[in-house]
Amino acid sequence: MNIADILKDRKSIAKAITEIEEGNTELATEALRGIRGAWVIGVTGVPGSGKSTLISKIALKLALEGKKIGILGIDPTSPFSGGAVLGDRIRMRELNKFENVFIRSISTGGKLGGMSYHTPDIVNVLDAAGFDTIFIETVGTGQDEVDVMNIANTVLVVIVPTLGDEVQVIKAGQLEIGDIFILNKSDQGAADEKIKEMTLIMKERKDGWIPRIVKSVAVRNQGIDEILRLIVEHREFIERNGLKKNKLRQRILYTIKQHALNRMDEIMKNEEIEVYIEKVMSGKDISKVIDEIMLEMGVGYGKRGKD
Amino acid sequence: MNIADILKDRKSIAKAITEIEEGNTELATEALRGIRGAWVIGVTGVPGSGKSTLISKIALKLALEGKKIGILGIDPTSPFSGGAVLGDRIRMRELNKFENVFIRSISTGGKLGGMSYHTPDIVNVLDAAGFDTIFIETVGTGQDEVDVMNIANTVLVVIVPTLGDEVQVIKAGQLEIGDIFILNKSDQGAADEKIKEMTLIMKERKDGWIPRIVKSVAVRNQGIDEILRLIVEHREFIERNGLKKNKLRQRILYTIKQHALNRMDEIMKNEEIEVYIEKVMSGKDISKVIDEIMLEMGVGYGKRGKD
Repeated sequence: MNIADILKDRKSIAKAITEIEEGNTELATEALRGIRGAWVIGVTGVPGSGKSTLISKIALKLALEGKKIGILGIDPTSPFSGGAVLGDRIRMRELNKFENVFIRSISTGGKLGGMSYHTPDIVNVLDAAGFDTIFIETVGTGQDEVDVMNIANTVLVVIVPTLGDEVQVIKAGQLEIGDIFILNKSDQGAADEKIKEMTLIMKERKDGWIPRIVKSVAVRNQGIDEILRLIVEHREFIERNGLKKNKLRQRILYTIKQHALNRMDEIMKNEEIEVYIEKVMSGKDISKVIDEIMLEMGVGYGKRGKD
Repeated sequence: MNIADILKDRKSIAKAITEIEEGNTELATEALRGIRGAWVIGVTGVPGSGKSTLISKIALKLALEGKKIGILGIDPTSPFSGGAVLGDRIRMRELNKFENVFIRSISTGGKLGGMSYHTPDIVNVLDAAGFDTIFIETVGTGQDEVDVMNIANTVLVVIVPTLGDEVQVIKAGQLEIGDIFILNKSDQGAADEKIKEMTLIMKERKDGWIPRIVKSVAVRNQGIDEILRLIVEHREFIERNGLKKNKLRQRILYTIKQHALNRMDEIMKNEEIEVYIEKVMSGKDISKVIDEIMLEMGVGYGKRGKD
């Protein structure tokens, strides 16, 4: 099967994603094998920081250049996920007119902050379909969301000058993962002060990249070109230093891990788990019971897989 | 081994927790087997909502009654976790004077929003040590934190009238898990309006409990008695309806699951994972490769366990 042939238009891509979400691991495997190295941009920030608007504006520019752009929304309050206010949803519809733009809300099954196990699969599908740039929008809290940032080639952290430190502090960990920090809504509040503050706490990333800080007013299209320029600069840095293959490897590993976690979740929901609960409560070491669970389930699924 | 004998004072409890964190699964198993049914109270809310102060005030009342109180802090900005402002830390020190109060910050290994796999183990240790009430404080975003709420017998959701809807919206999923909603700092902002708003969206919980809403000003000790009364009311509701055993079962299951996830993480860090990456990229179905991973690792660990 040539995965690229299957993923020829938005409709067939949407269908493939649905199939994978419903458990078609063969297709997930083919998508993973078909990846071409799309540039994955993680965008994180609290609700209300304007990250959806920012993504719309950046994506629009790229779409007008004829590039194939994917946008995956995990934040439940985002217009990409059906939330948000009317203005945002209208902007979204504008973007959706482009056949070379694919927008998908990633369902978390109604769980707060929960990320779908299939997020990397969906990234892989778009990558295999020849998309140039894929945006993943998250609220940026929770381990899952930090993990998904690890599969991004460039991470944008969106902050605003108007939210107090009490709220900003939630994002302490985002300092570690951000490649480009965007102070959006910089026409409000004490933006310059915030920039100074941010500059002081910027730390060189493990890979040697020094995070950039940039101001924007996304609703007025201000700062978008500069953000695009910085994204290109970061991309060139990664490629020049031979780091792109690490990013791809991380994505492959993350894809496998999410499939394994999905399996684990299934096991835990299984009725057989009662037997294992009994064993632990009768005094068998948890670690040994988990050996048994892994063994049994590995064999069980293995058998099923051979049918 | 009688676990209660080992856990005779704060020092020995702290030592046992550290041992478990370092991989002593036998001790984790004994703690799980030794649980007596402590009342676990999950407290969630954004940073700055004052949940640490609330917990301090509630815990102080219970401690003065001679009850054994455990407080586990997951929120990195909380004074329980070493963060927060001086005033909070002083309050914490006051509380720490009581030999019947045990405070522990749960390290997330520097990961944002990440929860330690050992959180349920630590709850079990305190439970086995005869603690009456155990508070778990989280930021309340991220799947892990929603999960930990599932092992709580009562969930308190702390909100404030001063934060805008953009921020509150992050807590949409908290509507589903909260048993008691506390509008803290109710002397600020439009508290009564917020209460009305909240009342409108309250939904009966799956177990038949109708969530309560209560106002407080924790720093001035206002509303604490009412919160305590509601906690007792909820506890009586759970016990009267025979639901307590479900909560305990959930905790047992969650403990086992976290140990399994910990194992999974170890596997993914293992060098052998390269072999599996190769297999997937050569075309073997991800699902079948995961069968193999589970089998191999189940056997591998099983052997190691028998040494």
